[in-house]
Amino acid sequence: MTAEQQADQDEGGPSRSVIDRAFAILGTFQGGRIRQSLSDISRRTGLPIATCYRIVQRLTEWGALERDGESKYRVGLRLWEVASLAPRAVGLQRLARPYIQDLYETTGYASHLAIREGLELVSIERFQSPRRPTRRPLVGGRYPMHATAIGQVLLAHAPEEVQEQVLSGDLEPYTSRTYTDRAVLERVLADIVRTGYAVSDRQIDNVHIGVAAPVRGADGMVIAAVSLALTEKDADGKNMIHLVRLTAASISRALDAAGFDGSNS
Amino acid sequence: MTAEQQADQDEGGPSRSVIDRAFAILGTFQGGRIRQSLSDISRRTGLPIATCYRIVQRLTEWGALERDGESKYRVGLRLWEVASLAPRAVGLQRLARPYIQDLYETTGYASHLAIREGLELVSIERFQSPRRPTRRPLVGGRYPMHATAIGQVLLAHAPEEVQEQVLSGDLEPYTSRTYTDRAVLERVLADIVRTGYAVSDRQIDNVHIGVAAPVRGADGMVIAAVSLALTEKDADGKNMIHLVRLTAASISRALDAAGFDGSNS
Repeated sequence: MTAEQQADQDEGGPSRSVIDRAFAILGTFQGGRIRQSLSDISRRTGLPIATCYRIVQRLTEWGALERDGESKYRVGLRLWEVASLAPRAVGLQRLARPYIQDLYETTGYASHLAIREGLELVSIERFQSPRRPTRRPLVGGRYPMHATAIGQVLLAHAPEEVQEQVLSGDLEPYTSRTYTDRAVLERVLADIVRTGYAVSDRQIDNVHIGVAAPVRGADGMVIAAVSLALTEKDADGKNMIHLVRLTAASISRALDAAGFDGSNS
Repeated sequence: MTAEQQADQDEGGPSRSVIDRAFAILGTFQGGRIRQSLSDISRRTGLPIATCYRIVQRLTEWGALERDGESKYRVGLRLWEVASLAPRAVGLQRLARPYIQDLYETTGYASHLAIREGLELVSIERFQSPRRPTRRPLVGGRYPMHATAIGQVLLAHAPEEVQEQVLSGDLEPYTSRTYTDRAVLERVLADIVRTGYAVSDRQIDNVHIGVAAPVRGADGMVIAAVSLALTEKDADGKNMIHLVRLTAASISRALDAAGFDGSNS
């Protein structure tokens, strides 16, 4: 029996532990953790430092990680290149980007495309004024669904069990206006399904009003959402709802034409 | 001795073969190969289909791959999220993006940011007219260096051994104007270093004229390049050179302020 076969037998598969450990290490790069030392990684994975070191070496050889001048590790360009083929993110991004860009250029407001992943939303594309650089990642960031218009749209169209988990979970109050009451949020979600849009008034911070609408794939299922971020002084919210809905409809039409649907999301 | 230890001993490291195989599988997703069946993956990696299947299962469990409705595999959202932390691509992208966007909005021409990786350039950010949707990836694509202005800038500032490999390699003639003569290209590269910009006249296709300039990190080393893609009818090439150089200088200044330098690239 070879070592690999023995590992298979021990682990119920091809060295489950090694692949799982490698991805556990990659998984520690999240939430803005861009650079980590070997001991950071060891601590966060619970793996002994020697094991970490050997796996990190392999990941570095392949280019999934890179080592910088200060002996810290970061996610490598090679991994980024492979990931740039992820169709759920990049396929959607490529089809939807011109519309998000048009919406931004027409209105001057930050335009945003997101999808749901589990109980959170993941930012796929964002256009905003270059005069307002953001510290948040432009894409790839995860955010809760209950406190933004774009998240509420995704939540309103999520499967019942996902809604149940979010509604029965911790509805963190980002501002005094955030929906933290389950019954209120349930009514809001029903309204979003009925009206076809969401408006979130300073629920994630005390400045922005979000307006969002659902994007449907070729099979008619909601697979993404589009939003604009206004501020209170922008009085033309009604018109913005029209623009966001029109943009969402145009993207849905483009996805339909491309046959991009639920099986891609 | 545990199976893992035995594997270590056999492979000179922690189950080198398993991690290497996992990443060999991920590595087959490239060059526009967005969806692959198990037999595609097996053929391209040279791994037996049963081995492929078990490793692909693990990758799918973690979210590095996803399976679509037609039993094909694609790169998963989870990998994309981790990769969105790659500082060499994303850190640079975040700092440089507003400037690339300004350049596009000011001129209306496609604006592009790229870095060198090995003997090729990797596209980091691109702004272009939403009226001209592209089939090429917006980011993450690899291209040769000798046939575009942005590539020539990166090549001109590459280490000598990299230049030597490119110059002594295959200089593919994309058009009749592409530099395929080593001596000519050497003179062009020297000019680029001397003047601080590159102009490439219909060398990658018969339509576009590229204008590019180098971006320097905090340590003064060239770590990226910026370009604009004009067409022949755009007579104000001279002015475009100024704009591209100014943009590259502004990005360099921003990188300097952020302490983003060679150790990040």
